[in-house]
Amino acid sequence: MKTITVGIIGAGRIGKVHAENITKFVPEMEIKRIADPYMSEETVVFLRRLRIPYITNDPEDVLSDPDIQAVIVCSPTDLHAEYTIRAARAGKDVFCEKPIDYRLERVHEAIDECRKAGVQLQVGFDRRFDHNHRAVYDAVQAGKIGDVNLVKISSRDPEPPTIAYVKVSGGIFYDMMIHDFDMARFLAGSDVTEVFAYGAVLVDPAIGEAGDVDTAVVTLKFANGAMGVIDNSRRAVYGYDQRVEVFGSKGAVMDGNDTPDNAVFYGEDGTVSGTCYKVMWDRYTGAFAAEQRAFVQALLSGSPVPVNGEDGLKSIIIAAAATKSMREGRPVKISEIE
Amino acid sequence: MKTITVGIIGAGRIGKVHAENITKFVPEMEIKRIADPYMSEETVVFLRRLRIPYITNDPEDVLSDPDIQAVIVCSPTDLHAEYTIRAARAGKDVFCEKPIDYRLERVHEAIDECRKAGVQLQVGFDRRFDHNHRAVYDAVQAGKIGDVNLVKISSRDPEPPTIAYVKVSGGIFYDMMIHDFDMARFLAGSDVTEVFAYGAVLVDPAIGEAGDVDTAVVTLKFANGAMGVIDNSRRAVYGYDQRVEVFGSKGAVMDGNDTPDNAVFYGEDGTVSGTCYKVMWDRYTGAFAAEQRAFVQALLSGSPVPVNGEDGLKSIIIAAAATKSMREGRPVKISEIE
Amino acid sequence: MKTITVGIIGAGRIGKVHAENITKFVPEMEIKRIADPYMSEETVVFLRRLRIPYITNDPEDVLSDPDIQAVIVCSPTDLHAEYTIRAARAGKDVFCEKPIDYRLERVHEAIDECRKAGVQLQVGFDRRFDHNHRAVYDAVQAGKIGDVNLVKISSRDPEPPTIAYVKVSGGIFYDMMIHDFDMARFLAGSDVTEVFAYGAVLVDPAIGEAGDVDTAVVTLKFANGAMGVIDNSRRAVYGYDQRVEVFGSKGAVMDGNDTPDNAVFYGEDGTVSGTCYKVMWDRYTGAFAAEQRAFVQALLSGSPVPVNGEDGLKSIIIAAAATKSMREGRPVKISEIE
Amino acid sequence: MKTITVGIIGAGRIGKVHAENITKFVPEMEIKRIADPYMSEETVVFLRRLRIPYITNDPEDVLSDPDIQAVIVCSPTDLHAEYTIRAARAGKDVFCEKPIDYRLERVHEAIDECRKAGVQLQVGFDRRFDHNHRAVYDAVQAGKIGDVNLVKISSRDPEPPTIAYVKVSGGIFYDMMIHDFDMARFLAGSDVTEVFAYGAVLVDPAIGEAGDVDTAVVTLKFANGAMGVIDNSRRAVYGYDQRVEVFGSKGAVMDGNDTPDNAVFYGEDGTVSGTCYKVMWDRYTGAFAAEQRAFVQALLSGSPVPVNGEDGLKSIIIAAAATKSMREGRPVKISEIE
Repeated sequence: MKTITVGIIGAGRIGKVHAENITKFVPEMEIKRIADPYMSEETVVFLRRLRIPYITNDPEDVLSDPDIQAVIVCSPTDLHAEYTIRAARAGKDVFCEKPIDYRLERVHEAIDECRKAGVQLQVGFDRRFDHNHRAVYDAVQAGKIGDVNLVKISSRDPEPPTIAYVKVSGGIFYDMMIHDFDMARFLAGSDVTEVFAYGAVLVDPAIGEAGDVDTAVVTLKFANGAMGVIDNSRRAVYGYDQRVEVFGSKGAVMDGNDTPDNAVFYGEDGTVSGTCYKVMWDRYTGAFAAEQRAFVQALLSGSPVPVNGEDGLKSIIIAAAATKSMREGRPVKISEIE
Repeated sequence: MKTITVGIIGAGRIGKVHAENITKFVPEMEIKRIADPYMSEETVVFLRRLRIPYITNDPEDVLSDPDIQAVIVCSPTDLHAEYTIRAARAGKDVFCEKPIDYRLERVHEAIDECRKAGVQLQVGFDRRFDHNHRAVYDAVQAGKIGDVNLVKISSRDPEPPTIAYVKVSGGIFYDMMIHDFDMARFLAGSDVTEVFAYGAVLVDPAIGEAGDVDTAVVTLKFANGAMGVIDNSRRAVYGYDQRVEVFGSKGAVMDGNDTPDNAVFYGEDGTVSGTCYKVMWDRYTGAFAAEQRAFVQALLSGSPVPVNGEDGLKSIIIAAAATKSMREGRPVKISEIE
Repeated sequence: MKTITVGIIGAGRIGKVHAENITKFVPEMEIKRIADPYMSEETVVFLRRLRIPYITNDPEDVLSDPDIQAVIVCSPTDLHAEYTIRAARAGKDVFCEKPIDYRLERVHEAIDECRKAGVQLQVGFDRRFDHNHRAVYDAVQAGKIGDVNLVKISSRDPEPPTIAYVKVSGGIFYDMMIHDFDMARFLAGSDVTEVFAYGAVLVDPAIGEAGDVDTAVVTLKFANGAMGVIDNSRRAVYGYDQRVEVFGSKGAVMDGNDTPDNAVFYGEDGTVSGTCYKVMWDRYTGAFAAEQRAFVQALLSGSPVPVNGEDGLKSIIIAAAATKSMREGRPVKISEIE
Repeated sequence: MKTITVGIIGAGRIGKVHAENITKFVPEMEIKRIADPYMSEETVVFLRRLRIPYITNDPEDVLSDPDIQAVIVCSPTDLHAEYTIRAARAGKDVFCEKPIDYRLERVHEAIDECRKAGVQLQVGFDRRFDHNHRAVYDAVQAGKIGDVNLVKISSRDPEPPTIAYVKVSGGIFYDMMIHDFDMARFLAGSDVTEVFAYGAVLVDPAIGEAGDVDTAVVTLKFANGAMGVIDNSRRAVYGYDQRVEVFGSKGAVMDGNDTPDNAVFYGEDGTVSGTCYKVMWDRYTGAFAAEQRAFVQALLSGSPVPVNGEDGLKSIIIAAAATKSMREGRPVKISEIE
């Protein structure tokens, strides 16, 4: 089996998830090094159990290792672009967690550096690789629903993040709905040209005080004429609720939520089945592995990665447009942003 | 529109159900008379509102009316055969509620009299006309599942009948599972050749004291080689539970229970939807009308009725075999019964 | 049983539906007269079979009959307000098919006349009485989902109307989405304060040439802070697709489409179940009867009707706002309309 | 983390499945050795990638290694008892794939040797650890359905095994339904006291010629008074179909099949979703890992293993009784077997 040697920068939650998934499910990848300046003892134990040969505090160790062909950037968001650029300059293909950056010029810079260096850049939109969403996408691509007329996405988290996080997150459109913007483009098979956003503070007033909304509905126009609508809430008490639907000239295709099991209880007072997963890592466990498999397969075969820098860029632009739309109370064209 | 003039004998629960359904949903039938020796004032009011011209205490009024072309027998069970025979002798087609009789010789007599009189005899196995069971049947008939290998039926009532009724009912196989014996033959498209019955008293000891069981599992062999299994319980706290499944060489087809609505609640502790109907009349409301429509259409077109005396006879024979099997603790061939 | 004597004006499709439902399912109503200037022989035969005593061409016969306590207005839309007003002036309670009128001043006039005459006015938003939507509403009202955050409605018809109809219909918001505007208010338990509408011609260019759109997505703000989104399409090849969802602080409740049966086929290439109903009359058959029952019960008990003239008015105002929003490409406040 | 060092005997399909699952998902187990006399080069490569230190052809290497505390027996069936006994004599806890043996005396011997040696013996009934079946079990154990009245199990394989395998398999009851016998006891929470079996050759005449049936329906009586029914087919064209249902005094609980995704297509001709998994390893992937986790947790905590030798024995006795019942055409008491 042909393999690729990779390094990981960042050993926080998502870095460990990638490290574990690659070890277990992506035999084509060999993790040689993982680096994080602030690694707890517990993290080191966890990574050692995965038998990663070099566990280090210095990202430079990853970037300068000539064996390492690709770097997986799992650093804090404000360093995503930085490490992407440095990895590109070191001639390494890059898998960068989303978002590349909240600042459009930094995103452009990262994309440009990868282009100049002739390396590939995949962005971590893991939901494209979820088995259910992917099946919806496949049905659309197979022409089952004909021309796409409408894309609908519900995306609700079980719990809001901390207020501290809300303050630095860039807002619900950058931090949460960005996944759905990417999903909308992915399912519609077309770029967004205009957005209109409504937002409200319905979950926690503290979110409003921090300058954000916690509930939002965004309508979209696509270049191919289709329309879209996305709703987000920071709190669904029944768990991680993520459903997509694509409606077209020949039918509709939609998915539902995974549940831990499909047992159903028929009782005197109702028919009861399980709730959605309460944490993202359980819901998307397979998706994280699948996006790494797709990444390595693209590298090995020399084909383009399935979610590239442009995809990362476009979602950020839509987030910017949605933010502007909500603030100004009017639809905003994507062309207004850049 | 060609119509047929009918009379109804018996104005108990099922007689009123047929009267109402025919009035509302079977324009091809005109009810001229309904007779019952013991009619309450409330019943008379109900029947008057249906605008039935003649409401009488004497079944003979129905039997002797030359305008009446068909008689619907809704009398107590022990008079089913009696009125069927008298109606046949009067030259009238007969719709007889199930069972024709518990005594096989009376069933034969009723069938023979109808044959001699050249009239048709339909038996009231309403479930054959239920929209869900019928869709399963249609799929089997359309060849979708290929050769039938297995028929599975669950049939559970919300509440046991009164002990007084249990004592005269002939037992669970005659009174309750008889519907499923007919359904099994209907779905399998083949006759039963052998049965094996297990029964138990799990719902109410008084049922056992009355000489019956309240829970039963019966396995069947069909002439075409397929097998079947039926389970019955006198009490499902969640309502009227009736599901069928047919498995074959090219697939399986099954149905579920109707519910009053399909709303689903996603809550913190589970996903909750409605329970089954709690009363038979709600669950099978459409089936009672459909069986009358099928009856009148057969009469008007001169084609055979869809559930005839032989069908009624065969279910009773299977009930007899199941009763014998449970008592003797061994499989019983249908050929042992007659 | 206390009953109310009613007359029906208009014996087109909806007039006949009401006549039949009342006859079969609403024993508290006695239809004395039905009037329509242009009644076919077939219609007369149909109405006679329902045993309606007086079938006439002159609506005045209904309006002037002192026995008639309530009038059901099923005339062409442009005469709804006219007959409502005349019935009110004749001292009769009114059930008026939706919309009361497309012209706001006429709607006001009709409402005012009913108020002046001291008669009740119910508007024919039948979907409020659909068993599934009603179960969703009941769950919301029972507090199961806590505070309402979001209302989502999908509403798609199997086939577009004729172009001739499109030209006079007032457009998709007045003709089709008006049902959903009412449903949104009903489910949210709050009035709409602002709307934003996107529309597109994706089904048939001829609809665009006739000045309308055939696909639309409308987002709503409610007075209670909640948001809403409605999508409409003139053509869903799989049938009449109508689903609602309400999301709140304690959960979500949603419904699905009814199907003719619930049989499921497990085959080599997939698991297949039935499609939605292909015609509205099948999907909402129970709702039409239920709204008449609710009407007569309100009249008999002297309580307010469940969907009044204000409800009719408000949906039309929202439709006007949505039309304006789509044309002007900006969100429109309800307060801008009047 | 406390860990246990294990060895695996047998590197066929199931041996490799356990080796892989333990490596990925059971950090409390360290596989030191795996032995198989007939290991392909491909198998060796596969095992090396799992970083198992010693890969050998001699099971004795496993049995004699004093570091190894527990042995996982994945040998051909006729050596299960042999290696179980030798491992027990070597003082090692044993996880033995099902069935321990087809010969009851060998099963007893294995159990006795483990008892004498003071080691634990877990039998590989993986389905007890399936997330769906387990959720059904948990609901029953939690008292949700009250007293168990009925256990229903459908278990159908996508494809029959080879005729060569059929000839040595011991028959459908030993080879296939044995899983369901164990599941029935597990769900009922009670021992089987009597069985009645019907079998037929409906899938492939060659199976009949080999002396077996390919379709079977078995009814069961449990010591607690409940009844059970199991149906098996060697071929379900739509995939691996395994559903369980438990019905009781307070309700029923049932599960369905997992599917690769939950996308649903609404098309003109029907509503289509995915089929069941086509291979067991996909359907039960989580169950195999979960049973090893349960095994190691029992060993580490010194508590009894969740499926012991008695459980293995009892399923084989039920298989013997079912075989006898089918051959003799009568119900067979479990007490007749031993």
